[in-house]
Amino acid sequence: MMLGPAIELGLDLTVLATDPAESAAAVAGDVTLGAHDDERAVRELAGPVEVITFDHEHVPPEILEGIGRDGLAAVRPGPDALLHAQDKLHMRERLSALGHPCPRWWRLPDAAALEAALAEAGGRIVVKTPRGGYDGHGVRIVERAEDVADWFAQGGDLLGEELVPFTRELSAQVARRPRGEAVAYPVVASRQKDGVCYEVIAPAPDLDPEAERRIRELALAIAEDLDVVGMLAVELFETADGAVSVNELAMRPHNTGHWSMDGAVTGQFEQHLRAVADLPLGATTPLAPCAVMVNLLGGAAEDLRPGLEAALAADPELTVHLYGKSVRPGRKIGHVTLLGEEPGALLERAHRAERLIVDGPGDGDAVPAP
Amino acid sequence: MMLGPAIELGLDLTVLATDPAESAAAVAGDVTLGAHDDERAVRELAGPVEVITFDHEHVPPEILEGIGRDGLAAVRPGPDALLHAQDKLHMRERLSALGHPCPRWWRLPDAAALEAALAEAGGRIVVKTPRGGYDGHGVRIVERAEDVADWFAQGGDLLGEELVPFTRELSAQVARRPRGEAVAYPVVASRQKDGVCYEVIAPAPDLDPEAERRIRELALAIAEDLDVVGMLAVELFETADGAVSVNELAMRPHNTGHWSMDGAVTGQFEQHLRAVADLPLGATTPLAPCAVMVNLLGGAAEDLRPGLEAALAADPELTVHLYGKSVRPGRKIGHVTLLGEEPGALLERAHRAERLIVDGPGDGDAVPAP
Repeated sequence: MMLGPAIELGLDLTVLATDPAESAAAVAGDVTLGAHDDERAVRELAGPVEVITFDHEHVPPEILEGIGRDGLAAVRPGPDALLHAQDKLHMRERLSALGHPCPRWWRLPDAAALEAALAEAGGRIVVKTPRGGYDGHGVRIVERAEDVADWFAQGGDLLGEELVPFTRELSAQVARRPRGEAVAYPVVASRQKDGVCYEVIAPAPDLDPEAERRIRELALAIAEDLDVVGMLAVELFETADGAVSVNELAMRPHNTGHWSMDGAVTGQFEQHLRAVADLPLGATTPLAPCAVMVNLLGGAAEDLRPGLEAALAADPELTVHLYGKSVRPGRKIGHVTLLGEEPGALLERAHRAERLIVDGPGDGDAVPAP
Repeated sequence: MMLGPAIELGLDLTVLATDPAESAAAVAGDVTLGAHDDERAVRELAGPVEVITFDHEHVPPEILEGIGRDGLAAVRPGPDALLHAQDKLHMRERLSALGHPCPRWWRLPDAAALEAALAEAGGRIVVKTPRGGYDGHGVRIVERAEDVADWFAQGGDLLGEELVPFTRELSAQVARRPRGEAVAYPVVASRQKDGVCYEVIAPAPDLDPEAERRIRELALAIAEDLDVVGMLAVELFETADGAVSVNELAMRPHNTGHWSMDGAVTGQFEQHLRAVADLPLGATTPLAPCAVMVNLLGGAAEDLRPGLEAALAADPELTVHLYGKSVRPGRKIGHVTLLGEEPGALLERAHRAERLIVDGPGDGDAVPAP
């Protein structure tokens, strides 16, 4: 999704892919073959380019440090910044030291520490592997130390966090250039399904303007404090009293920002490229009072075409983004966006489209003859 | 510009290009090498695909007829429809027979016919080569038969048209599916510079709603009468009395519709793909009260980056589309779009951006330090 905006900004994009059949590689003109954790491949990518950036957080920091040290390419966000999105213990330590709101958390070197944290927290906490988790992987709700015995056996400290009694999840996205220019998008509300981002409403409904302003400033402050370059998504818990605490950080275009591709003057993929290429940032102004985004997660339909036809026929205002990935149950294979006035009605339409596309049209969903 | 929408709709796109370095080929995953008038190459392209469509009108009709006859692929728009965009004499004959408004026109087999037309028209007419013209090529204002002696020497009839005293040019775009479903975009106003589309205002300012409705219906009727599949642009002259007559037809996404990529729910490239792939058509609703599009025509700057930086810095709401083409004077190398309320102010901003990008920032256009 960065490819289109890259062309339009006159930037040459080379993609690192493990397989030429990968969806990004299949559409990119220039591809370097190799894995993201293969130092040789990442350095081969770095050689001819000016800037390296990411669509996930899993490139090992030591590879990126070497590229910066040897002057092969600018790494944006830099390895020091990126580490806060790669290592959740590092993120908690740093945000806490900076005074940014976090849930209560514990460094857990062993089962004894976990038992102590459980006692302190009332018997249940969330335990996370500091690195490598995504979309609900590497996260468990734990009542006994045995629940994560396998993780302790692998070595390394774990992160414990209180179970925040949140009323909803919010996400604040900002973009920042190398020398500090930054812009913030409207704060959005997101909902997960089995640990995977599922639906987003932009802007977050019924969010007090003063609270919105504070959350935007929090995200801008985190971007500056951590020296982030590119897009930063700050995922937040909101509790009944209106307070927020930071859940996770992502330093790249993020699922909670997909709405901006169709719903804002500057979409997040273009914005990320502008930021890492050190071009002036674009307006984050929404194009409609409300945008909703619903993820398409692999369902019963292997061939998406009949459901796509039914969904487009049912809703001419629907925008569909398929990712060119093969369908596996629960896999993110695309998303849909709708712009309008009222989030409830838009969500209902978006979910109808989602069901048609991922499960295929049923008997009651006949495609009307044109 | 069809590539992004193709991916998002789950369509596999193969591009026919004469050179792998051509801008479309450089970004497309699948490329067939060959010229658009090379029957072997076009048939090689047709073999594996389901549908062939176009981004210009210059593929010889006999090649397309052969592909249809041999069932290699569906050709959309079909050769019979496309001929009206390929051959201006054919278009004039057909539109006149259908009763659609045209300027006075003459078939000119020879200099004597041209002299007669000149006498009838008061001494000056427009003469066009029926085929192969674009962007002002193949069009001359003629006062004496000698002015087009070279064209007559090449053989074949020419087209003569009265010089319409138009007050402005309008463009009406519609999209139509194989079985007839069709949608119309808002009618826009366009302005040319040296025969090349230069700026577009959507919707056309101060166009009476009843006149707009009639023009949309004219475009929809032409699409149906000619059995067009895909996007159809009907370029029109508007005269002081508010009457319109058809200037030209284009059966593909058209420069006068570029505003829709950023300014309408469904952009024209996605809409064209939906139509030719026989998918339900999308809403043509504008996203703002006014959109303006200004073409970037190659100017003094060979390196576009400094001007791009200055333009983006000066106007965060600016959307820039570069085409990845090398810069030559007057060549279309991209376009810019702005959404807002008032066309005059938007045009001023768009032209400021245009000058910065195509000529580069001057002494007075220093890029502000971020």
